[in-house]
Parts: sequence; structure tokens; C-alpha cells
Amino acid sequence: MNGAECLLRTLLANDVDLCLANPGTSEMQFVAALDRVPGMRGVLCLQEAVCSGAADGYARMARKPAATLLHLGPGLANALSNLHNARKAYSPVINIVGEHSTQHLAYNAPLTADIAAIAATTSHWVRTLESPQQMGEAAAALVQATRQPPGQIATLIIPADHSWNPAGAPGPVLAPQRPCPPDASAVRNAARLIRDGAALLLGGRTLTRHGLEAAGRLAAAGVQIFSDRYAGRTTHAPDLFQPQRLPYFPERAQPLLAHLRHLILVEAQPPVSFFGYPTHRSLLAPPECECFTLAAFEQDGTAALHVLADTLRAPAFVPTSRPAPALPSNQPLTPATLGQAIGALLPHHAIVSDEMVSAGEPVLECLGLTGEYDHLPVCGGSIGQGLPVAVGAALACPDRKVFALEGDGSGMYTNQALWTMAREKLDVVTVVFANKRYRILDVEMGRTGAGEPGRAANDMMDLHRPELDWIKLSEGLGVPARRAATTGEFITAFLEAVTSAGPILIEAVLAD
Amino acid sequence: MNGAECLLRTLLANDVDLCLANPGTSEMQFVAALDRVPGMRGVLCLQEAVCSGAADGYARMARKPAATLLHLGPGLANALSNLHNARKAYSPVINIVGEHSTQHLAYNAPLTADIAAIAATTSHWVRTLESPQQMGEAAAALVQATRQPPGQIATLIIPADHSWNPAGAPGPVLAPQRPCPPDASAVRNAARLIRDGAALLLGGRTLTRHGLEAAGRLAAAGVQIFSDRYAGRTTHAPDLFQPQRLPYFPERAQPLLAHLRHLILVEAQPPVSFFGYPTHRSLLAPPECECFTLAAFEQDGTAALHVLADTLRAPAFVPTSRPAPALPSNQPLTPATLGQAIGALLPHHAIVSDEMVSAGEPVLECLGLTGEYDHLPVCGGSIGQGLPVAVGAALACPDRKVFALEGDGSGMYTNQALWTMAREKLDVVTVVFANKRYRILDVEMGRTGAGEPGRAANDMMDLHRPELDWIKLSEGLGVPARRAATTGEFITAFLEAVTSAGPILIEAVLAD
Repeated sequence: MNGAECLLRTLLANDVDLCLANPGTSEMQFVAALDRVPGMRGVLCLQEAVCSGAADGYARMARKPAATLLHLGPGLANALSNLHNARKAYSPVINIVGEHSTQHLAYNAPLTADIAAIAATTSHWVRTLESPQQMGEAAAALVQATRQPPGQIATLIIPADHSWNPAGAPGPVLAPQRPCPPDASAVRNAARLIRDGAALLLGGRTLTRHGLEAAGRLAAAGVQIFSDRYAGRTTHAPDLFQPQRLPYFPERAQPLLAHLRHLILVEAQPPVSFFGYPTHRSLLAPPECECFTLAAFEQDGTAALHVLADTLRAPAFVPTSRPAPALPSNQPLTPATLGQAIGALLPHHAIVSDEMVSAGEPVLECLGLTGEYDHLPVCGGSIGQGLPVAVGAALACPDRKVFALEGDGSGMYTNQALWTMAREKLDVVTVVFANKRYRILDVEMGRTGAGEPGRAANDMMDLHRPELDWIKLSEGLGVPARRAATTGEFITAFLEAVTSAGPILIEAVLAD
Repeated sequence: MNGAECLLRTLLANDVDLCLANPGTSEMQFVAALDRVPGMRGVLCLQEAVCSGAADGYARMARKPAATLLHLGPGLANALSNLHNARKAYSPVINIVGEHSTQHLAYNAPLTADIAAIAATTSHWVRTLESPQQMGEAAAALVQATRQPPGQIATLIIPADHSWNPAGAPGPVLAPQRPCPPDASAVRNAARLIRDGAALLLGGRTLTRHGLEAAGRLAAAGVQIFSDRYAGRTTHAPDLFQPQRLPYFPERAQPLLAHLRHLILVEAQPPVSFFGYPTHRSLLAPPECECFTLAAFEQDGTAALHVLADTLRAPAFVPTSRPAPALPSNQPLTPATLGQAIGALLPHHAIVSDEMVSAGEPVLECLGLTGEYDHLPVCGGSIGQGLPVAVGAALACPDRKVFALEGDGSGMYTNQALWTMAREKLDVVTVVFANKRYRILDVEMGRTGAGEPGRAANDMMDLHRPELDWIKLSEGLGVPARRAATTGEFITAFLEAVTSAGPILIEAVLAD
């Protein structure tokens, strides 16, 4: 078999069976091998940021890596911003990047670039294949690298001749890799600090059901528990404890932590504001607060929480019943009224890809009161991940309904993802929060001391001129679409969306 | 004045007056400064690849740099693929990239990334500003770096506090920088080689009117002259000599050069095929052919051609009159019939941004027979530059009509550029060659020995499922659009487009 087939067979043997691709000439052998290696699903994306964002969403839900297939340096470059987000989410992602054939590399052809340097900006592991005979071993090492806890980005750069030339046998089937167990002395120290008033900050993989069950017991024992707002996936459900998510702005987060002398980190780093400001400290905990690591990112924080709860003889968690949101009366759409409507109608077991940016907080407050859902936020702050992450989540969980709650400015970055939703008939409901502005910049401009925007500055935030027509955009990309400007119209469209299968988009036109 | 204002004033003093922006919080001071520093035109783009591609197109036509304004590492990452193209076109481009404030950098906030490493993958010059007091000097050095012949990419990374804090005076006004003059001994040697049968390969800046005038004299003296197909800009006109553009495929290019013992390079490198193949050599000149450099990229090749023509006492060029293309009869659209229609109707002094990919050759054959036009191809092979380059060319030349001749697959990469065309009322006619396929890959697949595509492979090249509706896409982005499936429909739409102002898109549906 040739190198390309050897690669695909090694990936498949190690449970990697999804390839998010935008291939070119240097990757044609992999494309051809898709027909010879049954079991590898190829999904075409029309821009590489969709490939990488989808791989991120897939990894967060499937808890295993998908592969991207990218065309030389520029293809990888287009994928970088969402690889940045994936890296910050600790999502395992495999990148397969074609390179010119080795004899061609010396001549500075138009597409020649330093692919390894581009890869190194976001990958934990980068290797350029040196011969087709190494393909099996290298492909196994590639998968192994992504499994390094808590999850890594790994990139294998493959000169075209190494995929078209004969390779050896596929690489080995890897033993499963588990996160490092919690440290017993760290648990004892954490218990002591907690008796002394320390709070917990949870992140990483601790925020799904099993981790939150332990956290609920700890909360029942009186421990104050916060969550990292940039953790990759958080499960919310009426029967689950929900830690307080640290707010975005430092002046809102800092008072919550102001009384602490110790903060115990569980798969989390010392919390920091999103941006630095002239008038605020960046660190959210007070200067006198010491951070203590109960479980580092590569450790099993969930297990640590359970041992800690046992150590503290924490009681069972008793959920407080919160009132289910009522459908709003008919009125103009605002983030708050949209939140009420979505909160009342979101089906049980939904997945929410959240790129609402400025509109997010009032919506999130309304979710998870009636059923369970998984929340997937933007972890690296690079906009343009919401629609691709929804693609990946839907590929990982075909039996669950995915909701992409999306800003109009951020949605424009990777609108190509809609086409892949249509092509693969993914069950994704996209809601575009059309405020026709980079609204968050209004807020941030004043905070950085830049003053009120003048006309030229306003032009850098305004999306009115011309107005984006998301109905036409979406239909142009093959996804049916509805427009709503009132809660009544939105509820009708949303009900249609949740009761039908396949992708649909709702443009929610926000009142000024 | 603060650092941001100091930067803008230094840029303006050095004739940089266009800023292609997608700013975020860390760039708010520059946005605010736009209102205090009259003369700097801010143009908003909805994805950073549009900013960088537009800067490339602008530089090719204006022969000076525009600035991009990009939001931290991910914003720069999105710009990289078109910076790669700009680099291969030797276009000068200024990148201004915001960074977290210096006190914030230590804390690994979500957007923290190694911006300098990302920049270094495509920039010739990278600097991170160390204090606001250095802003004036650094901004001047930034412009200076882009002017280094033949044109460079330069990136200044600016921590947010250095833009909001007080800076010193603006930087100096730079002396103009000219390319190095030709070398007299190189001209003598070239003349000797030409008498011995050497041919010329022209690239870089030699392919506009002044260079082609000298080339025409040399051709009249019997010299065989080729052009680099990846040069950034070539002028075509009935009265101008036109060198033979080296074909894309090596088996077509190699026979043209097979007889040569010497090839004289004028702002060109030894010619190489676009991709390497198992069955073809990469170098286009035969192994026994020596390449001799008359003018390196940083030298003035145009001046060298004129001196060479004088040395050889070359006569005046007499253009051969070629028949003007006739309008095709009404029939299905193919690249050839589209070429005839566009060739017959293209207005004098047009600018053509060419990203037709597989459809290009038959169209280009028909252009330039009735009037002059400038041809801007994809120089770095990274698709997604055609629409952004058209944006930049239109900003550089508001008195000229710009035509973006665009593949559907490549056009999808940066469809966001259409919105900027609408917003700035740019006089750009976009023609989408809708073959609903990455057609070039059909050709390349067989050439790399990968065989005939099976069903899975075919899915990686096919854009039918679902069909892209470019009319809705374009209207959704604010650009009026027409669909044409016959030459008659196309001619009607094209005539409307060339006789009206402002952007318009024509979806040319190609017959299978």
C-alpha cells in the first residue's frame, strides 16, 4: 500500500474515523485512499477554518480527535485561528498537511512555505515525514501526541511523494491513555485549605456530569465553587450543581473572589480577565490570594473532586428547584427576550455552540432550567468558531440537536460552515443574533480609554452599511432560513426548527 | 499624543493613507485615532484574509503599501494565506497587529499567542514595540521595511498600553527608496549570451508598460522572451509586446525551453512547475541550460532591459495586429465562450483580478486584443485572493473598472470581500465561473498517479450538493447579482455591469 493508505489505516485502527478536508493536489493520494479504506468519513469544508473549528467541536463532544486534511502552508494558515481556539479548549486535533514532493521543495514554487513554522504556532507536536517507510510509525505517533492529557494539537506534514510511494505496514494500535491520577497529598492539602475557607475553581474536563456530581457534594458541604468561563464544555441540567461562572469583566469578577486567601485550581489556571485595561488589574483573585493546584490540566480533576468530597465527608447534592422560564409575550427581540424563548423551548440533551459575544449573558441565564444541555463556548477568543464547532458537535453526536447561537459579526467569519451543514444534513439550528454591529467593541472602546467613537471609528464597528441579509446568505449556502423580529415570530421559527430535522437558520433581528 | 495617533501620523507622513481593518479591543486606540488624524481612510473587512488580500491588490496597482489593522494572533493568522500570496507577488504590505497590554501578557489570557512567530511565517520584518516612546521611530522603520526592493511584508506588533500611553513625536519622513540600478557587466554578459541564442524570462515589475516597451524592442531584434506566470502584475495592450507566459503544466512548458543553453532572468527565478509530479521534472528549463541573472528581484529590471536593448541596437517594436474577438453566438457558457464575450466587451484600462484556476487559459487568450488591461494573477497559489485583490485594486484606482474573474470554489474562501465592495461602492464586476467543482483537482488527481476518483474521492471535489446560489450569496452581502447560463444572458449582464457604476456580480453557470 502507498503512504496515504498506510496513514488512513493507522488512523482508523486507532479510532480516528473522521477527516475534515479541503484537499489540493498535494493531498490527492489521501483523497483517492478514502475509497480504498472503508470507514474513514471524509467531510468537505469550503474553507480550512471550518475544518479546524469542526475538529474542535468534534473533540469536545466525542472526546477523541478528528483529522483535518489541509493543503500546504496556506491551507494550514487558514485553519490556525480555530486551532488556536482548539488549543485553548485542550481539544485533541490531528492535522494532516500535504507538502510539495521532496524533489520539488528546493525550487521555491509558488506554494512553498515553511509549513513547520506555521504549524508550530498552534501545535504541541509537529513532524515532517522523512520517508514513506516511516508513515505507519509516524501516524501512530501523531495520534499518540493528541492523546497526551489533557489533549493536544498534533501536525504531520507529508511530502506528496511519501504518500504516493510504497509504505510499510500500518502503525501500531495504541494503548489507551488516561489522565494522571490525582495526587493524594494534594487532596489532603486541598481539604485542609477548604476547612480554612478556600474556594474551588473548576475547568478542563471537570464540568461535565461526573465532575459536577462531585462538585455538587462539595457545594452541599459549604464549599464555594467557581467555573472557568473558558473551559471547553460544561454540562447544565436542573438536577446538576452549577458552579458560578466567572464573569467576563474584571470589575464584576474581582468582587466575587475578593474575600479569598486561597483558591484551589482543578484543571484551571489562575483566573485572568479577557483583556487588560488601563484601570483594572488583570488577575481576578486578590493579590494576597494564593492559588493551589489540586489537579493540573494533565491530571484527572474529576477523580480528584470525588476523592476530595469523600475526604470531606460531603453530603449528597440536593438540587434547588428553579422556576422554568415562561415564554415571553410578543415583543421586540432583545438578548433577554430571546433568552427566555430559547430557554423555554430548548430540547433536552441539546448541544449549544455559543458565539453570542455581547449578547451571551442574558441568554445563558435562561438555559438549562428545564433540561440538560452541553455548553461549548469560544475558549481562545478568536471569533469564527461558533458555526464550525456546531458542525463538529453534530458530526460527533448525530442523535442530539445542536444549536449554534451566533453573533452576526462572528458568524460572517466562517459562514462557509453552513454549506457543510447542508451537505451532511447536520441537525444544527443556527440562530444569528443580528445586532448589525460589533457590539462588544462599543463597550470595550470606552473601557480602554479611547473615548466615544467618532464617525470614522463608528465605521469600524458598524455592520449596517450594507445590511447583511442572513436569509439570502444561508439559502445561498443551502440552508433554509427564517427571519424573526419579534418574539412571536421567533417562537414560531424556533418551534419549526426544533421539531424538524436537518439544518436551519433563524436570523433574529435585535431591536436597537 | 498617544501611541496610536503617533503611529497614524507617521504612516500618513510617509504616504500610507489606507488602513484595511478588522479591529478588536486591543486596537481600539487606533480606531479612535482615525477621527483625530484626518487623511487615513479606514476600510472595514469582515474577515482578515480580505484585509491582507486587499493590501496585496492595492500594492500591485498603487505601487505603495496599505496598512492592515489586525486583532492579535488569531486576526493575523486569518490574514496569513493572503500575506503568503502578497509575499510571492513582492507586494509591500504593512501589518499593524494589536497585542495585549504588557502587564496582561504574563497571564496566558484566552487570546494570548506568539504573535511574532505567526508574523515571521510570512513577514520579512517583524518587530514588537517595546515602549510608546519608540512608536514614531518604529512606525517609520515599518514603512521603510516595506519599501526595501522589491517590496516586503512588515509587521509591527503593538501592546495595547503602548497605543493608549503618551508617545513622542511622529517618526521621520523617509527618503524615497529606488531599486538598485542594473549592473553594467551583467548587461554586457546578457548581450553576449543573447547573441549566442539565450532567451529572456521577465518577472517582477518588468511586465508593465515601460518594461514591455524595452522587451518589444528586444523581441524585434529576434530575442525569445518569456514571462513568469506568477509575476504580480502584467499589462496587456494591442500596442504592447507580450512575452509568452510560461504554461502551468511542466509538459507544456518544458518543450518551449528545451532548446535553450542559457536563460537570462530579469526579476525572475529559475522557472519551476507549480507542483511536483511522479512523472515530470520540476525545473522547466532543461538540465543543461544555465540561468544567468541580468537583474535580481531587488534590482531595476526594467532599466536593465532598456540598456540591453540599446546595447543590442534593438529596433522599434511594431505590434502585429491581431483580430479583435467577435461576440460569440448564443450558446452554452464554457470558459472559451466566456472568454470571447469578456474579450470583446472588456473596457479599455480595465484591471483583471484572475482567480479562474482551471478556466483561466481560454479566457486570458481572448483579453487585451482591443484595449489595455492589467492582469493580477494569484502569485502564491493560495486560493481566496481574487475578490480581496479586486477590492484593493479598486481602492488604488477609483477611476478604473476592476474585474474579478473568479472560480466558485476559490471565491467561497473570501466571499466576505463582496460586503466591502458594497460598503465602499467599489467599481468591481465579479464574474463567478460556476463549474460547481474544484475542477483543477480532477486534472491533478490523475497526474499525481492517484487514479480515477471513486465516490468518496469525488465528494472531496464536488460542489453540487448543495448547489451554491451566488445570486443569493451576493445579494446577502449587499452586491446586486445576475445569473447567466448562455452567452446571450451573459452578454446582457456584462454590458449592464460595464456601463453602470458600483459592484455587481454575475454567476456564469458553466455547461458540464
